[in-house]
Amino acid sequence: MINVGIVGATGYAGEELIDILLRHPDVRITDVSAKIDQPKNISEIFPRLKGRIGLVCAEPDLRQIIDKCDLVFLALPHTVSMEIAPVLLTAGKRVIDFSADYRLADTAVYTEFYKTKHKDKANIQKAVYGLPELYRQKIRSAQLIANPGCYPTAAILALAPLTALNLVDTDSIVIDAKSGVTGAGKKVAEALLFSEINEDFKAYKVDTHQHAPEINQELSKLAGKKLKTTFVPHLLPMNRGILETIYVNRSRKPQAASRKLTDLYRKFYKKEPFVRIREEGDFPRIKDVAGTNFCDIGIKDSGENVIIISVIDNLLKGASGQAVQNMNIMYKFPEHTALA
Amino acid sequence: MINVGIVGATGYAGEELIDILLRHPDVRITDVSAKIDQPKNISEIFPRLKGRIGLVCAEPDLRQIIDKCDLVFLALPHTVSMEIAPVLLTAGKRVIDFSADYRLADTAVYTEFYKTKHKDKANIQKAVYGLPELYRQKIRSAQLIANPGCYPTAAILALAPLTALNLVDTDSIVIDAKSGVTGAGKKVAEALLFSEINEDFKAYKVDTHQHAPEINQELSKLAGKKLKTTFVPHLLPMNRGILETIYVNRSRKPQAASRKLTDLYRKFYKKEPFVRIREEGDFPRIKDVAGTNFCDIGIKDSGENVIIISVIDNLLKGASGQAVQNMNIMYKFPEHTALA
Amino acid sequence: MINVGIVGATGYAGEELIDILLRHPDVRITDVSAKIDQPKNISEIFPRLKGRIGLVCAEPDLRQIIDKCDLVFLALPHTVSMEIAPVLLTAGKRVIDFSADYRLADTAVYTEFYKTKHKDKANIQKAVYGLPELYRQKIRSAQLIANPGCYPTAAILALAPLTALNLVDTDSIVIDAKSGVTGAGKKVAEALLFSEINEDFKAYKVDTHQHAPEINQELSKLAGKKLKTTFVPHLLPMNRGILETIYVNRSRKPQAASRKLTDLYRKFYKKEPFVRIREEGDFPRIKDVAGTNFCDIGIKDSGENVIIISVIDNLLKGASGQAVQNMNIMYKFPEHTALA
Amino acid sequence: MINVGIVGATGYAGEELIDILLRHPDVRITDVSAKIDQPKNISEIFPRLKGRIGLVCAEPDLRQIIDKCDLVFLALPHTVSMEIAPVLLTAGKRVIDFSADYRLADTAVYTEFYKTKHKDKANIQKAVYGLPELYRQKIRSAQLIANPGCYPTAAILALAPLTALNLVDTDSIVIDAKSGVTGAGKKVAEALLFSEINEDFKAYKVDTHQHAPEINQELSKLAGKKLKTTFVPHLLPMNRGILETIYVNRSRKPQAASRKLTDLYRKFYKKEPFVRIREEGDFPRIKDVAGTNFCDIGIKDSGENVIIISVIDNLLKGASGQAVQNMNIMYKFPEHTALA
Repeated sequence: MINVGIVGATGYAGEELIDILLRHPDVRITDVSAKIDQPKNISEIFPRLKGRIGLVCAEPDLRQIIDKCDLVFLALPHTVSMEIAPVLLTAGKRVIDFSADYRLADTAVYTEFYKTKHKDKANIQKAVYGLPELYRQKIRSAQLIANPGCYPTAAILALAPLTALNLVDTDSIVIDAKSGVTGAGKKVAEALLFSEINEDFKAYKVDTHQHAPEINQELSKLAGKKLKTTFVPHLLPMNRGILETIYVNRSRKPQAASRKLTDLYRKFYKKEPFVRIREEGDFPRIKDVAGTNFCDIGIKDSGENVIIISVIDNLLKGASGQAVQNMNIMYKFPEHTALA
Repeated sequence: MINVGIVGATGYAGEELIDILLRHPDVRITDVSAKIDQPKNISEIFPRLKGRIGLVCAEPDLRQIIDKCDLVFLALPHTVSMEIAPVLLTAGKRVIDFSADYRLADTAVYTEFYKTKHKDKANIQKAVYGLPELYRQKIRSAQLIANPGCYPTAAILALAPLTALNLVDTDSIVIDAKSGVTGAGKKVAEALLFSEINEDFKAYKVDTHQHAPEINQELSKLAGKKLKTTFVPHLLPMNRGILETIYVNRSRKPQAASRKLTDLYRKFYKKEPFVRIREEGDFPRIKDVAGTNFCDIGIKDSGENVIIISVIDNLLKGASGQAVQNMNIMYKFPEHTALA
Repeated sequence: MINVGIVGATGYAGEELIDILLRHPDVRITDVSAKIDQPKNISEIFPRLKGRIGLVCAEPDLRQIIDKCDLVFLALPHTVSMEIAPVLLTAGKRVIDFSADYRLADTAVYTEFYKTKHKDKANIQKAVYGLPELYRQKIRSAQLIANPGCYPTAAILALAPLTALNLVDTDSIVIDAKSGVTGAGKKVAEALLFSEINEDFKAYKVDTHQHAPEINQELSKLAGKKLKTTFVPHLLPMNRGILETIYVNRSRKPQAASRKLTDLYRKFYKKEPFVRIREEGDFPRIKDVAGTNFCDIGIKDSGENVIIISVIDNLLKGASGQAVQNMNIMYKFPEHTALA
Repeated sequence: MINVGIVGATGYAGEELIDILLRHPDVRITDVSAKIDQPKNISEIFPRLKGRIGLVCAEPDLRQIIDKCDLVFLALPHTVSMEIAPVLLTAGKRVIDFSADYRLADTAVYTEFYKTKHKDKANIQKAVYGLPELYRQKIRSAQLIANPGCYPTAAILALAPLTALNLVDTDSIVIDAKSGVTGAGKKVAEALLFSEINEDFKAYKVDTHQHAPEINQELSKLAGKKLKTTFVPHLLPMNRGILETIYVNRSRKPQAASRKLTDLYRKFYKKEPFVRIREEGDFPRIKDVAGTNFCDIGIKDSGENVIIISVIDNLLKGASGQAVQNMNIMYKFPEHTALA
């Protein structure tokens, strides 16, 4: 039984995380905190949790968090995490950070996309990118996990086998991504009002989104060379889920029938509890993974071009579910505990 | 051809009003203004209007408005209208006000529900409540129209015949109202975020909503005695439209078959271009009136109890459509011009 | 560990039931069946379940079901259950039936509302109405559970304390109910198409819905006299959840402050794990219970009139969650197992 | 004043068409028909039209249609139009057909994608592809208009300038298209139920959709050589609107700043009343065109790659609006009449 704290408990990822952890037999939530006007019972903030949790949510008190927790989840926006993580790490705590602060190895890229200087370069090297399908070994012993972004999770899982096996023309990758609105967090902005989004659909940050460098970094590592994708995110009039339609050219002609690519993906992910590969030509939709920690992937290979569709629940495999999967690995709990 | 100005052009009602007026053959929009950081072409604010209107929207300049307009629409929140209307009226302009500022005869009630003192009591008497079905004669010559609230429009039209004919037990009226989200305006608040409203439904201001006194005032006039309804509004996860389900007890036993009540309603509204009465037992839904200026009403009369369902588009018959209907009456244009 | 079968596994309630039971540590699903063209793996029908269940879904084979199951859930439409239940009961199996077939004591009423003769009158007496808050004792030893309808669950829980304590004028009850679309099941009909329901809202079966007699039967038992409510259901443009706004007149003046009614409700439900009473004047919304087995209730008592709002998730407390709660009671599992 | 008939009046495009034509000063609807069980007033089928049109809708009676109409709109599914059009054409009537029956010059392609033999090859040559931006001259005198598909309208308008000017690598075009649900028509199928589509998003007919050959045919004509795009449509949980995100490689390096491409588009469409080009890097969203006949296009040109986003309302510029635009051209009415 471990004691965990959640900083940033009042956002969508925080709420989801509490919900998962309350079902986890080996975890006790001992502290919840957030930027908040005055302390409030967390079940007053989320009436759905009433009767299940009685903790008071207040501004984070790091001394108290260090006293009460073995592991701390930082469900915070970028730039805020790097203020808090160093203190917790120094105190010997393990940390799973939801923000982008420890995901990018190159702080110049961080500054370009997040418009701020990085304040904790020392801990970037320490951080393990928390995508279990690529980094499970390192996650086991990590002290600091940089929990991946939601778009990158779906994109990297969709492209990792092709890229690692050198089957893709690395100049040609187009990622057309569509996300539900919770991906933007609980930000109070006119653009996120119901009447602005309902019955509408739009692209945003066309080829300039901050998740692009994260995708490029991880795929470049797999490809063994620098790679740049074209990434266009869109906003769906729905709460949860991401679907990415990915278009690539093959770098080498397939030596066998198109069926083979599906087989390669199955082999690549064969021990993975949360990646499911569809039959060739069969594609997943968001409903297939909403409310779950799965990433479902479908592939159509015409020989020259490949179309890949990848879906996740942005709040689960794209955030809180993946964080708990990482925690399960770190503490040797069965990996699917509380996740299915 | 008349020249009109719109103050508060950047909200949902303002946008809808521009859209209607651009189709009106006898109207020229000569001024658009709003609370705005810096002047901007209105078609930049509403790209859908591009190529149809080229006016610049700036903070309201009353001198300029007076110079350029015969009639001014105030699509403003309450308390703001009463700062502006007196100036326009003094200058001899006609005014159609969308706010609640000139709807309630009793300023004590205004203060109770709108939490502020009234600052222009003098003009309240002058104002005509702009519900053409009840006040067409007065509207013709009015200088100041208090355009009705959206909930009251649907409620009063649904209950006017029963009340005027003294067929309803005035103590028993229950109005269960449901509205799309544009009814709340373009207010930037957490409660109005897409992810808060989508896949949710809730009541709000239960029996304390500020539209209740407006409904009570008008029905009391019709009944010839003070009347108080029970009014509970709810928020629908959709953009437009209001449906009210109304439960009343009859004050007198019907002397004939239930069909008769429908007949009474048809007779009451027989010259009305925008009220449609359904066959007994057939009920309208929001889709039947969305995008139109109609109010559709269905009735089921069990002898003792009556169930009435009334639907409108909150931005049309509940706001901008009704305002244009009032304008058409004031200027003797055919009443349905630009409205169908 | 018990073995359970699900007949009617391919509908929304069936899918939800499988999802819950897969998380239940004391249950093994041993048979899934449904009206289906040809046998298919259930995870092909519901790709979201892939990797979690491998059973083949075929037309129900009663001999096989009897062989393999201790308990059978019938997630079937009315009239189909009464063909199957008697066979299972005779074979000594326990049955939880989702249909209306065993809910109404009076078969004449059944025939009036379900337009068909009842074919298994013998087992109606045997059936226990599966609302744990009223019938927990009988549920423990029941062989046949008539799992309540979704609307009745929310309505009866909202009105039981008032009615049982003789505090309500039994002639005055108005239930204005609003439901998400899954309440109608996976019926392929034009009226249930996305483009017909999205951005629309409507009442249906106004004062003629088949759940009305079920509500009336249970409340009459509590009141000790025959009672008839006015019940108007509406269809919300959302997937899940029911909210009912209930208007009643008090039969007796309250002897104390309005706070007392909330206290009475709290006392009435004090041992209930799935009923939560709000503070006086605070009302629940659908989001507070969606995805949970809770029924949340808020009350406003003006002395003469009472407004009650009751919310449930129609697929959980209104169907599959309540069925599992009943199962937990029948088999002495902790009542909340797999439900929170 | 011309007399028009509508065959297939009961679908979404039919309803929209009636709504537009009722606002048209030079048109009288003289006949409405559809596949229908028994004759019914069209305002009973669409209660929103009540009071605006009184025609009875029955099965199409071609003799009567020929007697009463100058122009006939066929808002029919493919294969049905080619049964009816020849009769009307022989009788000298002008016809605007919404189906795919007269869009494809190559009947082998028609058979491949529509799974049926073509039965009226004779009239295919006669037909003019009703995209005014490309074929206005021919439309003027056409007897038979093949009204374009919704996806092709957005795609062709987005790609025509690049293709006609030989600026695009014709092997590289990727069209990632997203459509609201009315695009599928009022087809009663499980996949189109509200609870199947709401809160979901999916691709369908991946690279096999029947609109692909239509897009390819028109772009090939512009390019002067055979061209094949990659076309993947998706279904949005909303009623109306199409957004297409298009990725192309440039065939020639731009000789000047990226601003130039926007200028080329503006020049190409400078006389078009219904095409609006955004500033470089500014992209339209569906809301900008919903309820209008506009096609809005935004472009981002990185020198090597170009991203184009094109939006239309599928029921207007993608169907009924475009049909009326074609009619206006055929009869020399001002082109925007009844369309703004």
